[in-house]
Amino acid sequence: MDFMKPETVLNLDNIRQALIRMEDTIVFDLIERSQFYSSPSVYEINKFNIEGFKGSSFLDWSLIQMEKAHSQIRRYEAPDESPFFPDQILKPILPPIKYPKILAKYTDEINVNEEIKQFYVNEIVPQVSCKIGEQEENLGSVSTCDIECLQAISRRIHFGKFVAEVKYQSDKLNYIRLIKLKDVKGIEDSITNSVVENKILERLIIKGQNYGVDPSLKYSQNPQSKVKPEVIAKLYKDYIIPLTKKVEVDYLLRRLEDEDEELVKSVEV
Amino acid sequence: MDFMKPETVLNLDNIRQALIRMEDTIVFDLIERSQFYSSPSVYEINKFNIEGFKGSSFLDWSLIQMEKAHSQIRRYEAPDESPFFPDQILKPILPPIKYPKILAKYTDEINVNEEIKQFYVNEIVPQVSCKIGEQEENLGSVSTCDIECLQAISRRIHFGKFVAEVKYQSDKLNYIRLIKLKDVKGIEDSITNSVVENKILERLIIKGQNYGVDPSLKYSQNPQSKVKPEVIAKLYKDYIIPLTKKVEVDYLLRRLEDEDEELVKSVEV
Repeated sequence: MDFMKPETVLNLDNIRQALIRMEDTIVFDLIERSQFYSSPSVYEINKFNIEGFKGSSFLDWSLIQMEKAHSQIRRYEAPDESPFFPDQILKPILPPIKYPKILAKYTDEINVNEEIKQFYVNEIVPQVSCKIGEQEENLGSVSTCDIECLQAISRRIHFGKFVAEVKYQSDKLNYIRLIKLKDVKGIEDSITNSVVENKILERLIIKGQNYGVDPSLKYSQNPQSKVKPEVIAKLYKDYIIPLTKKVEVDYLLRRLEDEDEELVKSVEV
Repeated sequence: MDFMKPETVLNLDNIRQALIRMEDTIVFDLIERSQFYSSPSVYEINKFNIEGFKGSSFLDWSLIQMEKAHSQIRRYEAPDESPFFPDQILKPILPPIKYPKILAKYTDEINVNEEIKQFYVNEIVPQVSCKIGEQEENLGSVSTCDIECLQAISRRIHFGKFVAEVKYQSDKLNYIRLIKLKDVKGIEDSITNSVVENKILERLIIKGQNYGVDPSLKYSQNPQSKVKPEVIAKLYKDYIIPLTKKVEVDYLLRRLEDEDEELVKSVEV
């Protein structure tokens, strides 16, 4: 995705290709996480006595360190990246990128990372990890894998903003009407494409099978996939797809804040 | 690999299983890197004017930040992890792990990361990246992918220490003799298993094909693998396998530093 060229980003085919490619990253990251135990200590509030860091989990601490490092190399300047701890990030050490405006001005305020962290920790970790329990010496590795998973899932879900913007641009008057009416149901219906959603789920099953099994063993020993493909599909069905839609709806509901006032006024409801 | 139980680590079958699993991680990481251009600015010394950081590359700067963060979560306490910048790492924020002794006392001094960085930057990056050149806004993403690749390759290569230790334990008197004679060729021959090496290369070709192609497209459009499988096999053949052997030989050549003096004396050469 070339964010320096808005016309390539605001193209539904290109967005879909990017979303399909992100599936690979998410499946790879979940497979990496599956090497470790569920490791509840990573997620428990105040489990470790970390200096100057009360009320949070070891995962949060690690995530903040990682976001500090990544913010310094400009990660959160990119329009497709959303920090989990926006108030903790640092100034980049590299010169800023002058990204052309693609999304509405309030885009950074649409951030569902807290919800992503909740479902990831509570629903994904127990199903993806190789065993319930923990091995003390792996807690760091676990949090490192978790961060990869969380960042990949967050990017996928917040990419909904581009989908929403494309749809808005392609049918402006209709959306202005729906937004003025605060017709959430109407907006949801307009952004839902069940055929595409079902294809995603089918494709994830195949990716889970193909990426999760050592292909050199496939025909000899019939081994199990490192992460159950149905778990990956369910993760998309129950969390990633609905939260992506939430991002799209939240983004659209505020879209008139960054629209020509005369145009908005001219649309009758 | 359970480093709390030395008997499970010093077992050649378990080590081979771990090495096979690491191939998946390396292939996944190279596939992730292939999304980006070669990006020479990431590797050029003094390309960016980073405060207090002269004479190094942007990759080095990023790698040091990452190692600082990871050292705080105990990454470099683990016997299978070797930092690229051992003099920059920080104290862990978690209580230390009491790992049982598995490797010889000088193990941390066997570190070929500088050589890994050289071949990675000069040989791997140009072949794995999707295009020669760079996109300014992706330099941070590139360095993040590079760090994943480098860490995975480093872990794989330094795992040779466990192979060396197992071989030493299983044929001590012979190795003591070879080491006393400084018979590098003899040690190399004793640790080389061409059948296993060829299997690794064959398996990598299959993994490259299977993990690098979207399986839902495989039969319809005959797409190319994201990273050429032959490139991955060649990377192993020309760099990873030879450097693993170098680690094994370097480790073994010093092995008598951590051996019973009487036993060493008793072996005639």
